[in-house]
Parts: sequence; C-alpha cells; structure tokens
Amino acid sequence: MSGLNEFSIAAARRTDAMLDELLPAETEEPMRLHSAMRWSTFAGGKRFRPLLVFAVGDLFGVSPERIVRTAAAIEMVHTFSLIHDDLPAMDDDDLRRGKPTCHIKFDEATAILAGDALLALAFKAIADDTSLETDIRLRLIAELAEATGTPKGMVAGQQLDILSEDAEVNAEELERIHLNKTGALIRFSARAAALAAKASVEDLSAITDFATRLGLLFQITDDVLDATQPTSVLGKTAGKDAERRKSTYVSLFAIDGARSLAEETNAAAVASLAAFGGRAEMLRQIARATLARTA
Amino acid sequence: MSGLNEFSIAAARRTDAMLDELLPAETEEPMRLHSAMRWSTFAGGKRFRPLLVFAVGDLFGVSPERIVRTAAAIEMVHTFSLIHDDLPAMDDDDLRRGKPTCHIKFDEATAILAGDALLALAFKAIADDTSLETDIRLRLIAELAEATGTPKGMVAGQQLDILSEDAEVNAEELERIHLNKTGALIRFSARAAALAAKASVEDLSAITDFATRLGLLFQITDDVLDATQPTSVLGKTAGKDAERRKSTYVSLFAIDGARSLAEETNAAAVASLAAFGGRAEMLRQIARATLARTA
Repeated sequence: MSGLNEFSIAAARRTDAMLDELLPAETEEPMRLHSAMRWSTFAGGKRFRPLLVFAVGDLFGVSPERIVRTAAAIEMVHTFSLIHDDLPAMDDDDLRRGKPTCHIKFDEATAILAGDALLALAFKAIADDTSLETDIRLRLIAELAEATGTPKGMVAGQQLDILSEDAEVNAEELERIHLNKTGALIRFSARAAALAAKASVEDLSAITDFATRLGLLFQITDDVLDATQPTSVLGKTAGKDAERRKSTYVSLFAIDGARSLAEETNAAAVASLAAFGGRAEMLRQIARATLARTA
Repeated sequence: MSGLNEFSIAAARRTDAMLDELLPAETEEPMRLHSAMRWSTFAGGKRFRPLLVFAVGDLFGVSPERIVRTAAAIEMVHTFSLIHDDLPAMDDDDLRRGKPTCHIKFDEATAILAGDALLALAFKAIADDTSLETDIRLRLIAELAEATGTPKGMVAGQQLDILSEDAEVNAEELERIHLNKTGALIRFSARAAALAAKASVEDLSAITDFATRLGLLFQITDDVLDATQPTSVLGKTAGKDAERRKSTYVSLFAIDGARSLAEETNAAAVASLAAFGGRAEMLRQIARATLARTA
C-alpha cells in the first residue's frame, strides 16, 4: 500500500481532472458565472473529502473510476457551501485558502449564483454516472441531498451555527452543530464509497462510525488552528471565532482541553475500524494526519 | 374534461399537500430555517409549473399520483430561485405575492440557506419517488439539474439578466435570457410529465416546443404586467423593470408590440399541439389563460 501523501496526491489529481471535465468552460456564456465556479473550485482546496472517498473505496477494492464522479460531486457541494458561508450575510470572510473569496473576487450576486449552480451540477454528475448501477446512483443522490440540506445536513448546521453566535452553547449543542455542519458531508463521503462497493450493513455502519468521529476530529483541530495559527499559515482570517465570540471547542474546553478531546476522538475513530484489520491502514493514517494537521 | 379553473385548483391542492409532507415541520430544529422554507413555499404562488406537469400528465393518461412528487420538487426549485433572486445582492425585492420576501421576513443568511435547502430537498424528493422507475428518476434528476443550473438553466439566465442591466440588449439576446431564466424550468415541467409517461420521441419533442413557447409567452405577459399594473394588483413591486432600466419585451417593442408578440407566441404554442387533437385541450386553455392573465 502506498503512503498517505502519495495516495492523497493521486486522489486530488483524479478529482481535479473530473471537476475540470464536469464544470462548464470559462469561455462559455455566462463566462463570469463559469469563471466564478472555477475560481472557487480550483482555489487550492485540500480535497479532504475526495481523499476519504478513495480511501474507503480502496479498503473495499472499488476501482477509482467507479467513484471519481461522486468524489467530484462531493467537492462541488463542499465548494458551494464555502462560497455561500463566506458571503457578507453569513460569515463575511474575504480570504479563503490565501485567496480572495468568490464574492470579493467577483461580486455577491455572482457568488450566490455560482454556489447554486455547483449544487445543481453535483446532482447531475451522479445522475449521469453510468459506471454505477441506477439504484446506487439514486441512493447516493438521496443521501447527498440529506447531507447537504436540512434537518440533518450542512445547511441545518450552518443555520444552527449562526443562531449560536453570542449565545451560550454547551458541549452537546456544539457537537450537534458540527455533526451537521462539517460532519454530514464527511460522513457521506465515506458512506458513498461503501455504497458503491455494496458493502455489508455491518461494514457500512463501521465506516459511518469512523467518519462521524473523523468529522468531529476535523472540527476540533479546525478550532484549535483558528485560535493558535496566524492568517498566513491558515490561508483564511485567523482568530475570527474569538472575534465573533463564537462557541468553539477552544472556547468550551480551552486549547489543552480541545487537544485532549482531539486525541480521544482520534482513538475512537480508529477503534471503529477494528474489524477491517490491515485493510483500513489508509483510513487510520488519515485520522492521524487530521489530528496532527497544522493548516 | 374538467375546466381549467377546476383542474388548476386540484393541481395546486395536490402539490401543496405533497409539499407539506416533504418539507420539514416548523417545530423541528432549526425552526427558523424550516419556517423560512415554508413561508416562501406557501406564500400564495400560482403553482403554474405543477399545473403544467399535471396537464401534460393528463394528456398522456398518467395518474396524478405518479407525478405529484415531481410537481412538488419543481415548485421547490421555483421557490428556491425566487428567494435567491429577491436578495439585496440580486433583484432586491421586498415584496412577493403581496407579502414580505424571505430575507425581509427573516434575514439574509436564513433566506440564502432556505433557498439552498429547498434545492437539495427537490432532488431528494425525486430520488426517493418509488412510483417512478429508477431510470426515469435519474433522467428527471439530470434534466432538473440542467434546468436549474448552467449553461442552459435558470441560474445562467439570472446571471445573464443581471449582466444585461443598463446594457443594450437586442431581441435575440433577450430571448436567450428568458429561455434560460424562466423558460428552462417551465420546459422541464412539461417534459417531466412526458418522461414519466414514457412518451414517444415525437410527442416529447412536440411537448418541448409547446412549453418553450409557453415560457416565452409567460415572460412577455410578465413584462407587460410589470409596465401596466399597480403593485396592489401584482403583489410585487410594479415598474421595477423601468426603474432599473432593464431590457424587457416592453422596452424593446413598446406595450402594443409586446402584446402582438404575445398573440403570435400563443398561436405558435398552440400550433405545436396539433398532433394531439382534443387530448391537448387543457394545454391550449393554459396558453390562452397565460395570454390573458392580469396578475
């Protein structure tokens, strides 16, 4: 088995090639819209969710060709959510991955529309994916829609997060926000590959447990980084959580407490993989790298 | 065959009942988000697109039960587009169907998210529709995504429309804007019922021609109404097109010219239905009513 770094680069390359194929060309009208969609899609994202798709696919012996469109669709939905979350009416962020956000580079109307168009295109990408059986495509579309929307998806999580600003939020409520806001799409990324593999109910359940914990781990480390790293390292405006008086794992548990929670969450994630033995080594590496990440 | 009025009321009732079933309850968290989704969905829309779904279904002998989820999904996508188009960064409308628009009644962030959630839910509604064969559901999802997004859907049309403000637009460009902005979803509404009916290629093509013309007719009469009717009749702010110096069928052809064009477009729409004979009477009535509409 190749190392995580190599595997991760291959996953990102495959995803980017498929995104390039699926997104309308910048030379096609409306050019401003297509430029905006491509600007945010190719703004240097880590492709964490596609990596998870391919790593779970690898565990079950699914060929990358069978899941690459789904990986690209998930990255479109992720990009849509970043564009909309960055808008002035939401988190009002000017900088993302070290570059101007979509509404700064273009304008607000174009950013709203670019997000909308990416969301619609994601569903089309899966619907048209002839490498997957029709019933699997429908299951993926239904689960992607749930992970995106409400009451148990990203949109619901973002709404809860906004409503929580300036409010007292306890650990349970914070977990609920993030299980939806970042967790749902990460969970779907892992499940999608397991569904494409026609995994057993038990295996799908184990993968879901792992991804749920990985999503929380991702958020905890995100909160720690926001509180400890400068803007130049993060590629986005640092310290925004504190400035906005948002409840985070750091505001609730302090930095040391959040770091301990991250360790525990990593251990729980890895424990979910016990039944897979050595086949899940890449997933363990992903959890470890998430725990150790610095940006 | 029942009259248009009766048919239209039944279509709206069926659609509303399905929307009520599919949308999350206002009592479920996040309540503010679900209230916003329901506020805009049940704000007194005419249910023109669902009417078209059921009328085409009627022509082909499809049971209403087989197409009601698709009708509801289309109305969700329509509502999503109204919520986002009304935002301050877009058309900045405070009033819709005589009521405050979503971002006025709630707030901008909630309005953006309510639109996003409605769009995602629309795809889930079709994916889960067990009354349709799997291949038909996938075709509907792919075509709905195209009609929604870009380069040939609503989002593309809205972007072109925004870019055309304060610009000189000729008749051909104006038609291209509206074939996408209002046309694509109206066309899909008619095609969806024909696809559910497994209509022949010729019949699908005739229905598509009809709906394309009906969509243009709808837009031409919309422009005439904006220029001639007061806010109290329209239920939305009247005269906004002129105020914003937007190119419309009225600005290009004057009111009399736009009315003549509407007559011609109605005649062309009706001509597309020739092969269906008496079976298409409801569709002819819909075209006639669109030509004669006063709000």
